[in-house]
Amino acid sequence: MTTMTQHLDFFTAELEQLGQAKRSFLEIGRRAGRFPSATARTGAPGGDREISVWCSNDYLGMGQNPSVLEAMKNTVDAFGAGSGGSRNIGGTNYYHVLLEQELAALHQKEAALIFSSGYTANDGALTVLAGRMPGTLVFSDALNHASIIDGLRHSGAEKLIFRHNDTAHLEELLAAADPERPKLIVLESVYSMSGDVAPLAEFAELARRYGATTFIDEVHAVGMYGPEGAGIAAREGIADGFDVVMGTLAKGFGTAGGYIAGPAALVEAVRSFSRPFIFTTSLPPAMAAGALAAVQHLRSSDTERERLAANARLLHRLLNGHGIPFVSPQSHIVSVLVRDDLQCQRASALLLDRHGIYVQAINAPSVRAGEEILRVAPSATHTTSDVEKFAEALDGIWTELGLPREPAAVAR
Amino acid sequence: MTTMTQHLDFFTAELEQLGQAKRSFLEIGRRAGRFPSATARTGAPGGDREISVWCSNDYLGMGQNPSVLEAMKNTVDAFGAGSGGSRNIGGTNYYHVLLEQELAALHQKEAALIFSSGYTANDGALTVLAGRMPGTLVFSDALNHASIIDGLRHSGAEKLIFRHNDTAHLEELLAAADPERPKLIVLESVYSMSGDVAPLAEFAELARRYGATTFIDEVHAVGMYGPEGAGIAAREGIADGFDVVMGTLAKGFGTAGGYIAGPAALVEAVRSFSRPFIFTTSLPPAMAAGALAAVQHLRSSDTERERLAANARLLHRLLNGHGIPFVSPQSHIVSVLVRDDLQCQRASALLLDRHGIYVQAINAPSVRAGEEILRVAPSATHTTSDVEKFAEALDGIWTELGLPREPAAVAR
Ligand SMILES: Cc1ncc(COP(=O)(O)O)c(C=O)c1O
Ligand SMILES: Cc1ncc(COP(=O)(O)O)c(C=O)c1O
Repeated sequence: MTTMTQHLDFFTAELEQLGQAKRSFLEIGRRAGRFPSATARTGAPGGDREISVWCSNDYLGMGQNPSVLEAMKNTVDAFGAGSGGSRNIGGTNYYHVLLEQELAALHQKEAALIFSSGYTANDGALTVLAGRMPGTLVFSDALNHASIIDGLRHSGAEKLIFRHNDTAHLEELLAAADPERPKLIVLESVYSMSGDVAPLAEFAELARRYGATTFIDEVHAVGMYGPEGAGIAAREGIADGFDVVMGTLAKGFGTAGGYIAGPAALVEAVRSFSRPFIFTTSLPPAMAAGALAAVQHLRSSDTERERLAANARLLHRLLNGHGIPFVSPQSHIVSVLVRDDLQCQRASALLLDRHGIYVQAINAPSVRAGEEILRVAPSATHTTSDVEKFAEALDGIWTELGLPREPAAVAR
Repeated sequence: MTTMTQHLDFFTAELEQLGQAKRSFLEIGRRAGRFPSATARTGAPGGDREISVWCSNDYLGMGQNPSVLEAMKNTVDAFGAGSGGSRNIGGTNYYHVLLEQELAALHQKEAALIFSSGYTANDGALTVLAGRMPGTLVFSDALNHASIIDGLRHSGAEKLIFRHNDTAHLEELLAAADPERPKLIVLESVYSMSGDVAPLAEFAELARRYGATTFIDEVHAVGMYGPEGAGIAAREGIADGFDVVMGTLAKGFGTAGGYIAGPAALVEAVRSFSRPFIFTTSLPPAMAAGALAAVQHLRSSDTERERLAANARLLHRLLNGHGIPFVSPQSHIVSVLVRDDLQCQRASALLLDRHGIYVQAINAPSVRAGEEILRVAPSATHTTSDVEKFAEALDGIWTELGLPREPAAVAR
């Protein structure tokens, strides 16, 4: 028997176990200028249909902001399509340098470094920062993102996991650790699947008391919160309490790419040693230029942030009114708790079929089994009436599927 | 002492060991429509200057092809800047699907899957393909790219390394291995730093005899070689001998992103289990559209391939005439052997200062110490006279630096 036969048998069996639902991606054609409206290819005889997207991470609509689109098109004309090389070999251009300066300024850090994605930023930076200095002990939140988990795994560093957002548990672990060992605390500000916010002041204070270095993933916060969109730590006035901040250009900033910002020596070490940074083609100039325009826009405009916050508040209030449970009212990520994978898929399908509303059902392994959610993301581009219609539609489906209501509304 | 103090001391010391040269990236402004000419920010009082780029991976000039730039700009207008989500959560659009179909067709495989980069394609695909099936034994070429090494490392699979392009050594290892174990052979076609080409027919035959699955990285070949630009295996008429082919959209195709193509069940497994595929924002629609235009263009046009081949042949002949040693005449990657890191940097600096020619010096760890090269990459956009001028310039500097000539020219 050849290995290919074994491979085909093995992977076919594994895929069968997964089931069908997990493997079909809804194919959408987002339309700049019309977002959150889009077309979806449904596979149905009728062909394409109009939908309203309620699960995009382009939270502020920067993906259709005219200054971003102009910057991209102008840069395509002037610089071409791809960068043509890795950062070290012909692939560094003006926009990479300008964008890194802009991000360092946004976060008031000495330096910044951009990556192809937020995933590679976490993977590449943590592999170096946690792995290179011998004896480093890492403290990582239980709900940290896959890219953080992978970066820490790749670092080979010893890792202790503290219960999600549990400062008392972290303190216990810190107190029990060898005071001489270098310590790195890794956490997020807004958690991607639960939408709750870490008690950052307490975490910063703990880090200070135990002399630990801190690394914060503000992927779902940059652009959306804080002065100039610098994130939650900046909003709380404690950005200084977090040594390295990591973000993405693909969500609030509407484009693509990821970054870190922090002390020059640490950023420089990542630039010099991180393999996913070194051994890959750099971000296309047009992407860097578009991201730069987005960051600049959001540093001087509060309009998008305010619209997003207003939509999130309204949605929280309406769901509370209907007794539809969601994880947390602390951010714009409204994780509606269905707690059953089949029901979750049904709710998602009904929203799409009946109302043209697209919200992806999030099942394991992205969340724990039994904690299945509809991860609802209002955006700054939704109108008040869009939010109201969405809440009504969800309310109807909640009844139809016989899903439990919770009088007090916000769960856990 | 806080960890941050330790971090700063530790990383500052590590960076000092690296030396200065490694850390400065030449900042270039490539100009669409004028490539290989570009401007470079030199830091000198005069500011920017005109340079000619001789180390870009945009080998065919597709980064400035009008159909690619039009596709990108039109897609920016119609679809916006970023995709707004991961493939599974709102981030799949028409162009992703079309591009995957086009790549599968190009390679005559059942299915294809795109990633943010070639780095993540290798990392993500090999982690799954080598790691998921228990007992898999991997055979990996000694000069495989960092992204392959990282993917295999992350897979946790047992790995045997065969000497570069040494089929006898691979056979020895295969013969000694347990016949019952699943086997995966991983190699490149055109090697990125040496420019030599693997004896693919022999490797394919070995794989067949020992029933091994094969994974081939054709990053520096797709677009450039074979019918429709399908790569070296296709040129040799043995594409079938390689089960999974991996490529990039960032070199011959001039844009950004990476991919695999292969049997449906394997591609599907990678799609379902690969963490760097799942947990990241998908490629921006405009980038997918630009890549699609590039692939389509190169499937129907031989002009760029022929220009590149002619330039490479001419350069090989001229360097041979001057007795300037380079690793291999088998491809368009002409790795001029300087074999000393300081001399290599000097040669690179002199080419830039005197002649406005930009070729990056490649030192350890990208190549082994003592094998330092100027990695020269002619492109389809260089003219015959550009190639002649380049060879003359290099000849002059070779004399000035007293570098050794080799009568027979091509080394090893
Ligand atoms: C918390 C968190 N960190 C990192 C990432 C990765 O960012 P990117 O999509 O830019 O790769 C994501 C989402 O994808 C995320 O949710
Ligand atoms: C052989 C090889 N494989 C993979 C890659 C990664 O491709 P990408 O630049 O698209 O990440 C490269 C170059 O960067 C390479 O030389």
